[in-house]
Amino acid sequence: MREIRPAGGPGVGELFQLFRDARSWTRSELAEQTGLSRNTVAARVDALLAAGLLAPVGSASSSGGRPPAQLGMNPRAGLVLAIDLGATHATVAVTDLSASVLTSQTIDLSIDDGPERVLDAVFDIGERLLAVVASPSPLLGVGIGLPGPVEYSTGRPVNPPIMPGWDGFDVPGYVGRRFPVTVLVDNDVNILALGEHALSWPAVDDLIFVKVATGIGAGIILGRELQRGAQGGAGDIGHVQVPYSRDSPRPPGDESILGDLASGAAIARLLRARGVDAANSRDVIALMRANHPDALEIARQAGREIGEVLAAIVNTLNPSVIVLGGSVGRASEPMLAGIREVVYRRSITLATQQLQIVPSNAGSQAGVLGAAMLVVQQLFTPQSVTSIVTAATGRTAPVSVPAAAGLRY
Amino acid sequence: MREIRPAGGPGVGELFQLFRDARSWTRSELAEQTGLSRNTVAARVDALLAAGLLAPVGSASSSGGRPPAQLGMNPRAGLVLAIDLGATHATVAVTDLSASVLTSQTIDLSIDDGPERVLDAVFDIGERLLAVVASPSPLLGVGIGLPGPVEYSTGRPVNPPIMPGWDGFDVPGYVGRRFPVTVLVDNDVNILALGEHALSWPAVDDLIFVKVATGIGAGIILGRELQRGAQGGAGDIGHVQVPYSRDSPRPPGDESILGDLASGAAIARLLRARGVDAANSRDVIALMRANHPDALEIARQAGREIGEVLAAIVNTLNPSVIVLGGSVGRASEPMLAGIREVVYRRSITLATQQLQIVPSNAGSQAGVLGAAMLVVQQLFTPQSVTSIVTAATGRTAPVSVPAAAGLRY
Repeated sequence: MREIRPAGGPGVGELFQLFRDARSWTRSELAEQTGLSRNTVAARVDALLAAGLLAPVGSASSSGGRPPAQLGMNPRAGLVLAIDLGATHATVAVTDLSASVLTSQTIDLSIDDGPERVLDAVFDIGERLLAVVASPSPLLGVGIGLPGPVEYSTGRPVNPPIMPGWDGFDVPGYVGRRFPVTVLVDNDVNILALGEHALSWPAVDDLIFVKVATGIGAGIILGRELQRGAQGGAGDIGHVQVPYSRDSPRPPGDESILGDLASGAAIARLLRARGVDAANSRDVIALMRANHPDALEIARQAGREIGEVLAAIVNTLNPSVIVLGGSVGRASEPMLAGIREVVYRRSITLATQQLQIVPSNAGSQAGVLGAAMLVVQQLFTPQSVTSIVTAATGRTAPVSVPAAAGLRY
Repeated sequence: MREIRPAGGPGVGELFQLFRDARSWTRSELAEQTGLSRNTVAARVDALLAAGLLAPVGSASSSGGRPPAQLGMNPRAGLVLAIDLGATHATVAVTDLSASVLTSQTIDLSIDDGPERVLDAVFDIGERLLAVVASPSPLLGVGIGLPGPVEYSTGRPVNPPIMPGWDGFDVPGYVGRRFPVTVLVDNDVNILALGEHALSWPAVDDLIFVKVATGIGAGIILGRELQRGAQGGAGDIGHVQVPYSRDSPRPPGDESILGDLASGAAIARLLRARGVDAANSRDVIALMRANHPDALEIARQAGREIGEVLAAIVNTLNPSVIVLGGSVGRASEPMLAGIREVVYRRSITLATQQLQIVPSNAGSQAGVLGAAMLVVQQLFTPQSVTSIVTAATGRTAPVSVPAAAGLRY
């Protein structure tokens, strides 16, 4: 008996998962792989084609006759607005559903102008960029990275130290009034970790991304999943007290936390204490690039302090890769050397025997890439795909859906 | 057209996943849930019934006529041998496939007798216990917890500090010669964490289990998954250097690691330094139970040192629950108080606002429960279920499989 089911019913979202690692399939291969009947596969593929989520990608070899169609995920089925907010700048990008940046713009701004002014400004840029892309595909989601702790389940900042006016602000609600689509908000370090992992370390299961900029924090990927913790507060290594080291210039009884010893702001303060003119992390970067000896020495010591905290994390989590990023971290070879020195000295054999400690190479686009990945991962869950297909084809559509009922791409 | 497929083909393992959270289903509900045809569901259910992995569990209400059969996971389809090895004792249990202990025995032994003597001794007990259970169901797996670091992928101990003769020993290979079934080996703290999570905190996503016995270590569950890290070395908090605290009796320049300050062995040493007769962690437990004032004071301070390390972990991982277990941890209310004092003082608001720090209540069976869970989780993956069904029913079996071809239960 032939099944007559809503095209968006159970199964269409699960079938789509097979396309997520970018491989292509014929309908027969899908039937073989899933054990579903050819009729069922055909109906679900039709629905995914109609919704634009799948598209033909060339043709398989065949023994004569018309070759069977190869189908693949269609990255042009929708657009994502990806926003990476820092303390003093923002990058806004429009990406496709493979998180590839179609167009982007970076501007200076001040996060302490408060949420409405900052978000309105980046939304204006977002709309201009969407107009530039001029794609017929719909905007399906907005991803935002913020420079402070975020309760991931609600998208609200929680006691963010450098974001006055943002504490508890309903970011997704505010975004939703301008862009009524899926909105996901996370702290910028998690987003950088996602971007770095996707770009440079896709085969690695366990990766720690350390961001050193004005502040300091970590994004933690374990078992290939970003770990946010119970309230989204994971990765706040800036508040971890640094274990004492005999080699440190700190007095033995010091109880400093890492953010007060090794962030860009802390390095600027330590430079000023030596009479060097350094107002902020931007000045620190410039001094390091100019090989200023005090800047190099303080950055190396900051690396050692970071290493003391990372050594504890290495013994606790046994990652394969530690990536040093952020504007200060990326600019500082001595900081990386200081981290390596202490981590390899302090950590046990098993945890360090294959550990790599490397600089970030994702560059300034890693933030928007990660913000886009956050949205795409959410859009491509089975439930979300089922909703997209149902919306595009109608709940009570028959098995065979006219292609015109789908999204526009 | 009716599908004729091998009963153990794609899909049977996936269908079984629906039964893993202990709920029961009728065949119609399964067809509705999965979108598979009734014929396909019937064939896969028949194969799972024939292999003994499913069994009828009562009947659903129905509007007249014979009620449709409710099917559920059959925990009696196989047996697991679960072994919890400590430094000075072992618990051996036979469980069913829900990890329920059918029979168990605890003996004294010395882990430094080396792998062959120790394993031979526990295997003898295991065989006696299997004879006691006298079940017609086959043994499907052996799970073993060891008191030291284990490379999980190979099941070999790696530089275990208190297990002379075990370094690099091929535990699964040795077990497999006596019991030719699935063998999984992990360190005892991971196994205790799995047991504690399953027994007491099944709804919690992020849990840290801290074991304080002769040594000290942690089992880390994040996103509901046990995190072993890249080489299985995660959780080794005993090697983490303890941050300095003004309240500590340690001198300011001290660089001690946690295992040297707060383990059962360390507490015994600190008691001996005060002239108290305490040879090992067993003596420490006896003194704490007798409310010996030095034992209580040193245990509280040990709790504070553990708290200094856990505060860093809380800021880094933001767990919901920290469980204190192990023979010394379970016996020590002052240690728990010391941990709470420091963690709540040192950690940031977001990470501690809903954090619970509690004593283990899984008791002495938690180790064998966790060892059994390790095996059951592996046996019930889709690939493994498919193999079990294929082995039980034959690769080329028709859709309808005679019940007699299944396992014996």
